[in-house]
Amino acid sequence: MTNPSQPVRLSIAEAYQLSYEVLLSNGMNARHAAAVAKSVVAGQHDECHSHGMYRLLLCVKSMRSGRVSGEAVPEVRDVAPGLVRVDARSGFSQVAFDEGAPALLRKARECGVAALSINNCYHFSALWQEVEALAEQGVAAIAMTPSHANVAPAGGTKPLFGTNPFAFAWPRRAKHPFVFDFATSVAARGEIELAARKDQQLPDGWAVDCNGNPTNDPQAALGGAMLPFGEHKGSALSAMIELLAGPLLGDLMSFESLQVDNGNEIAPLHGELVIAFAPDTFAGGSADGNYERAELLLDHIVGQGARLPSQRRFAARIRSFKEGMLLDGALYNEIICALRV
Amino acid sequence: MTNPSQPVRLSIAEAYQLSYEVLLSNGMNARHAAAVAKSVVAGQHDECHSHGMYRLLLCVKSMRSGRVSGEAVPEVRDVAPGLVRVDARSGFSQVAFDEGAPALLRKARECGVAALSINNCYHFSALWQEVEALAEQGVAAIAMTPSHANVAPAGGTKPLFGTNPFAFAWPRRAKHPFVFDFATSVAARGEIELAARKDQQLPDGWAVDCNGNPTNDPQAALGGAMLPFGEHKGSALSAMIELLAGPLLGDLMSFESLQVDNGNEIAPLHGELVIAFAPDTFAGGSADGNYERAELLLDHIVGQGARLPSQRRFAARIRSFKEGMLLDGALYNEIICALRV
Repeated sequence: MTNPSQPVRLSIAEAYQLSYEVLLSNGMNARHAAAVAKSVVAGQHDECHSHGMYRLLLCVKSMRSGRVSGEAVPEVRDVAPGLVRVDARSGFSQVAFDEGAPALLRKARECGVAALSINNCYHFSALWQEVEALAEQGVAAIAMTPSHANVAPAGGTKPLFGTNPFAFAWPRRAKHPFVFDFATSVAARGEIELAARKDQQLPDGWAVDCNGNPTNDPQAALGGAMLPFGEHKGSALSAMIELLAGPLLGDLMSFESLQVDNGNEIAPLHGELVIAFAPDTFAGGSADGNYERAELLLDHIVGQGARLPSQRRFAARIRSFKEGMLLDGALYNEIICALRV
Repeated sequence: MTNPSQPVRLSIAEAYQLSYEVLLSNGMNARHAAAVAKSVVAGQHDECHSHGMYRLLLCVKSMRSGRVSGEAVPEVRDVAPGLVRVDARSGFSQVAFDEGAPALLRKARECGVAALSINNCYHFSALWQEVEALAEQGVAAIAMTPSHANVAPAGGTKPLFGTNPFAFAWPRRAKHPFVFDFATSVAARGEIELAARKDQQLPDGWAVDCNGNPTNDPQAALGGAMLPFGEHKGSALSAMIELLAGPLLGDLMSFESLQVDNGNEIAPLHGELVIAFAPDTFAGGSADGNYERAELLLDHIVGQGARLPSQRRFAARIRSFKEGMLLDGALYNEIICALRV
């Protein structure tokens, strides 16, 4: 235990070891614990704190609910030439993704485009991790999932959609991929919870109260609904994610996942759709010239003073590997308390 | 010719015949003229006026530039099990889409997911027409294209992205598909042009001037850059569209297409990416149960007083088929003048 008001500095290795042990001691087998620890440490070293080691607490809560399997052996099924399906069998998504990714890559290269359907998984991790890993293998990738119903459709008043993330990565030669990953809600639910704890008002346009009226009160927002980003456009995109990563996969939509959760407030149970595009197959040979032209676009973005979506994250990663990472002291203590000895 | 201040009522058949003759008389062969006439009349009968018969003027201008081929025979190539490529050979996109769609549908059913790459096409039509047609054949579909560079990336100051449309359709049993189609800019360029003509101020957040400063002046906006919807999220989505419907297809991005246009102000030359997902293949048999669950989502949207994205469009279609369509009198005269006799 440490002074809760002082941050703790951890090396990547220390952070990984702590995360791994917390997960192992709460009933995960070595394979699941390794995959989930790698994921939360990746969030931490990229300074995506909402998907960093903070999520260990949700993992532990989810494990202790008895619903999530820490030993699930995913079942991989070759459904069609362009489609691989992985049944996560009520485990977390990471091991299921690792099992399905090689077939997805092979199929994308053979077919041009291919899809990975992960079903029946508990999910909490940031999708950039998966599309980035695929882009590092030379494919462009899109990933999407529903979540828990917290967001009203544009023009509506009641929670129906999840914060439904949408992620994309484009492979670059000898560089970090171009990667983005955004929630289709205006704000993350965590930001509203934080405002409620600090008794701060919300900006306009974030949420409606339980009667569907615009609100700046975070408590009223938590009892009402969050709003989609970009009004009817973000709302349409969120509906697409519900349909493609829900019924298309034969898996749960956000409002169904929340019903299944039944007040346990653990990670949502649902499916994930990952689509991979193989640039070389599209080019009918080498895509070298196409990669070079893509760099022109990215140069023009940076050249006019705008930022590439993951630029800050990659900078944080370099810093973390060099200097280690600062973990909030109170969070560190909570994580230590979650260790079962 | 008619009184320009009075609208003209046309039946669907009359509108089609007029459009067809205008296109034919400007050098299109019967097949191209029929496909393009069908497209502009579809925009008109759905009251999407920006993609209705108004676009005949752009088509004629594009034909008269000598750059667009009105007789191009698209070349279809089976690139990979999940990928069909259609070279439009500098024709408009419609005939190329019609040539590629059957292979796309077959490949999606065989592979689960498949892609259609349309290359080297001049493009002006709304993407909802294509995804809707695919959904009526029982697949879910996404379509996207770059356009001409008019939009600055979030945080930037200079035009780089097009208004890059993104469209999606989900098939429904015995109902119109669920369809949306949006530009990734806050507003359509036509709306800014209209404001300039009427000397009206623009709402905040639509555009920046040539120095990258926010502006409400439509003239300054036209000389500056439009802004993406949803700030960095819409901007990221627009970059994805540039990459996937540009370099992935080996085709032009919006800034390249504008360079090729070289001040001619005709329809943009570029590629289009269409992705189709076969629900029955994903289900490994009949997707009936999945379709039924998808209806629950759509019922919950409508049930809370929100609108489905294309609801107004489908209502307009019914009205147009029953009562005919009103065409602006001045526009009607311009179209008549475009007839070459």
